[in-house]
Amino acid sequence: MEKISEFTVRRLSNYYRILLDLEKRGTATVSSQRLADLGGITSAQVRKDLSYFGNFGTRGLGYSVSELKTAIMQILGLNAKWTMALFGAGSLGHALFFHQGFREDGFYFKHVFDVDPGKVGTKWLDVGIFHQRDAEDVLRRDPVSIAVVAIPPDAAQDVIDIAVRTGIRGILNFAPTQVSVPDGTWLRNVNLAVALESLSFYLSM
Amino acid sequence: MEKISEFTVRRLSNYYRILLDLEKRGTATVSSQRLADLGGITSAQVRKDLSYFGNFGTRGLGYSVSELKTAIMQILGLNAKWTMALFGAGSLGHALFFHQGFREDGFYFKHVFDVDPGKVGTKWLDVGIFHQRDAEDVLRRDPVSIAVVAIPPDAAQDVIDIAVRTGIRGILNFAPTQVSVPDGTWLRNVNLAVALESLSFYLSM
Repeated sequence: MEKISEFTVRRLSNYYRILLDLEKRGTATVSSQRLADLGGITSAQVRKDLSYFGNFGTRGLGYSVSELKTAIMQILGLNAKWTMALFGAGSLGHALFFHQGFREDGFYFKHVFDVDPGKVGTKWLDVGIFHQRDAEDVLRRDPVSIAVVAIPPDAAQDVIDIAVRTGIRGILNFAPTQVSVPDGTWLRNVNLAVALESLSFYLSM
Repeated sequence: MEKISEFTVRRLSNYYRILLDLEKRGTATVSSQRLADLGGITSAQVRKDLSYFGNFGTRGLGYSVSELKTAIMQILGLNAKWTMALFGAGSLGHALFFHQGFREDGFYFKHVFDVDPGKVGTKWLDVGIFHQRDAEDVLRRDPVSIAVVAIPPDAAQDVIDIAVRTGIRGILNFAPTQVSVPDGTWLRNVNLAVALESLSFYLSM
């Protein structure tokens, strides 16, 4: 498969949400133009993004909402169940753990790690909170696919190294610092300020 | 100014972070190729993005890190101070309020609104938490530029309508639901699942 950019994948996620919404409203077909309008991009971009993955839609009729939704769901790997470990049981960790959208997408937290003695040994739903120093043992015994990092910047690289040693190949990092992962491991940094910067850009114009 | 896409603005934020980091490490100049490598895109894209805003850099020498950083800071409106109202003092609201990166970027929370009687009347730092039903009064008396929405989906559109009525023109929405704003108001939806979907896409390949 041709190398797919992160921006293409991000747009696929966007199409997926729009299609879920159209399906909920009972819409059966959608044109690339309508999909583009709802996504705030051009129809040429929509057709280009989808062309990487096959032939969708019928000329003049558009795409079947439910078929395209299912296809993108599979492309994004959302037909699988993904297990995750959460590093950091602070307020961001709490918000992420209880975020309903993750579960709906097939992403489940299996372990939570923190260093706060007041939290270690307690549970969120049926998931125990372990001390961060036990993370490597716990993850070797009971591995997961993805690590979500919601701890202060100075310890982020350390827990990422631990996660990678246990075989984790996907890291979602919320710590506002530059971290690195070896080849073959996928890292996504979520910077909460980026969306605000997009607002201040348009508000400044 | 030619219409600038949200993706271009997002890449500008990305360049800005890379330049901040290069400056911290004492790097004086950077080529478009190096900037592209650090950002995971092509150098042609870097040059195209920057060309919307002027002539930066010198052929063969690259860009001055500090000049380009300052220019992008101004383009993104980060030389101004932005005031914000936070709707929702739950765990996500708490994480956003105390997120250091916002303050460093010039974004300040001036008001917090919630419906929980246990929270209303208390303070976070020096910011009072008001009842959501008083939001319109408070915001008319003491307006802000941006509303950050971190409340359950069913009430999101209501508080956005209130915010817009008080003159707010930028909405950062974390509620996982389709909301709308009138023309002339900028809306950014932050979907926390999108970054996970990008991981599952690459992990599935």
